[in-house]
Amino acid sequence: MQLDNIAYFIQVAGTIAFAVTAVLAVAPKGIDLFGACVMGIITAIGGGTVRDLILNVPVFWSDDLSYIWIAFGASVAVFFGQSLFSRKYTYGLMLYFDALGVALFATQATWKVWQLGFGGPVAPVLLGIITAIGGGVIRDVLAGRQTLLMSREIYAVPVLFGTVLYVLVLELLPQFRDVGALACFSLIFAMRAAAIHWSLSVPAWLMTKPSSGNHSPPN
Amino acid sequence: MQLDNIAYFIQVAGTIAFAVTAVLAVAPKGIDLFGACVMGIITAIGGGTVRDLILNVPVFWSDDLSYIWIAFGASVAVFFGQSLFSRKYTYGLMLYFDALGVALFATQATWKVWQLGFGGPVAPVLLGIITAIGGGVIRDVLAGRQTLLMSREIYAVPVLFGTVLYVLVLELLPQFRDVGALACFSLIFAMRAAAIHWSLSVPAWLMTKPSSGNHSPPN
Amino acid sequence: MQLDNIAYFIQVAGTIAFAVTAVLAVAPKGIDLFGACVMGIITAIGGGTVRDLILNVPVFWSDDLSYIWIAFGASVAVFFGQSLFSRKYTYGLMLYFDALGVALFATQATWKVWQLGFGGPVAPVLLGIITAIGGGVIRDVLAGRQTLLMSREIYAVPVLFGTVLYVLVLELLPQFRDVGALACFSLIFAMRAAAIHWSLSVPAWLMTKPSSGNHSPPN
Repeated sequence: MQLDNIAYFIQVAGTIAFAVTAVLAVAPKGIDLFGACVMGIITAIGGGTVRDLILNVPVFWSDDLSYIWIAFGASVAVFFGQSLFSRKYTYGLMLYFDALGVALFATQATWKVWQLGFGGPVAPVLLGIITAIGGGVIRDVLAGRQTLLMSREIYAVPVLFGTVLYVLVLELLPQFRDVGALACFSLIFAMRAAAIHWSLSVPAWLMTKPSSGNHSPPN
Repeated sequence: MQLDNIAYFIQVAGTIAFAVTAVLAVAPKGIDLFGACVMGIITAIGGGTVRDLILNVPVFWSDDLSYIWIAFGASVAVFFGQSLFSRKYTYGLMLYFDALGVALFATQATWKVWQLGFGGPVAPVLLGIITAIGGGVIRDVLAGRQTLLMSREIYAVPVLFGTVLYVLVLELLPQFRDVGALACFSLIFAMRAAAIHWSLSVPAWLMTKPSSGNHSPPN
Repeated sequence: MQLDNIAYFIQVAGTIAFAVTAVLAVAPKGIDLFGACVMGIITAIGGGTVRDLILNVPVFWSDDLSYIWIAFGASVAVFFGQSLFSRKYTYGLMLYFDALGVALFATQATWKVWQLGFGGPVAPVLLGIITAIGGGVIRDVLAGRQTLLMSREIYAVPVLFGTVLYVLVLELLPQFRDVGALACFSLIFAMRAAAIHWSLSVPAWLMTKPSSGNHSPPN
């Protein structure tokens, strides 16, 4: 009960944070109220929607519309209160809420896919990542921004580590699955919070170097 | 019968207009015949395809291939007759056909989702919008153009107003559902036609202002 | 048996080539190891995934995870061995492997859609093309590159010709369906190999000309 309440709070906070950071991310390009709401809603529900399409199960928001209403309300609020939400303190808070959301949604997705027995040990990790970052990637594509896959920010890698850990626990120590879920959530949030706090980015030796000597790509 | 005939005519005209405006929109970037046909077909069927994937029903064009053939034929015609279709008069006509198509496809989608009882009162509006503008958004993404979500053109907002009105009628006055459908269609077309005729765009106070003081987005 | 072995070899070679060319294509923009793997995997399985979503059948990789593992391994290998894989000889080899993969995946997809009786004679062609080039298009969108639909490279047209030929055989001479499959595969590979070998591109008269006299697009 207590844990459920916490999970529910994180879910709401995460949905709000996804919508808020989405609107703030596209606002500098100039967007109208309608576009802001669409961006906020898509970012909040996009990842889980793609996951459910691939799983061939009903999209999660068709049962519980509160996700859409919350994302809609948050988008409208941030559209009119942009100056408030882009203040250093508020924006920082949103980043940590966003990290909570990423951690929770990835953990839930991994469990959902695992329970369905879909795609062995690989699909829970893959769809966990898609659920956590898919909405942000779609937002970037629609807004014409460079997607987070091409940035040096440490955003998706914590999700990879957390979901792999979770799947290892589910595979090898199934009796500790609750501990595994908590470890997955905590690891993702801790890594992401550290990346936010210390502004960490991917080290250069794990990046390809732009080199003019490459042959042109095939298409 | 009479109404069915009109709906059929609008459907064909709308499909043609979607394909034609798509090819004209990407042509200035330089595209070959094959790419033009793909863009025309995707724009014409893309929105409804995404809607059907989310609804988890067979995609509408698997039953009736005429949509694809019409979009294909229109794309080929406009590719070779580009100079004709980009003339002021013809192009203007296409914009109004496009508005007819947007209005009809949104109205049909709202009704389809409502009938399935999918996602309460929110999903019919959301999927109505996706059906009407989804093809154009996918076209813009594939062509590397700024998507219509980021433009000041009044394109999607009429769809929002029309579908909300329709859902309100279906919810509160179900006995007038035919009137609601007609009102939805007429409202969308009228707003869109007004936007085309007077070149209306979103007023500045409903736009975010590009501000350099923003903190950088989270990813 | 012999043919199955060959098909299996081509499938593996094609999957490797899709992942390798994907990583090489995005590497010049600067990408980290994680992003490289995501790009490699998405390019290798993206087209078939979209096809299966539209067909409303389980995605092909949920049964057989080897595609994902192979794409993952190839992506890691090329990330660390970038200088090896971008050498003229190796890269050229990869282009031909890529052509083998395109030809095989298109042929398989056409047959899969045809067998399901999905969407008459049109859908097998359309979904054959989506399967063969969809992964590459998604990669380009995520990487912010110009998609291959907007390039003059002869990449998708061979797939169109091959799948149309295959469908004609299936429709008119069903007793020769194996010959049709082989002809489809051979035609696609031959055209693509010719385009690679002689660096062919779409002739100018099949391209639209960028013209400043166009009216602005509708959205």
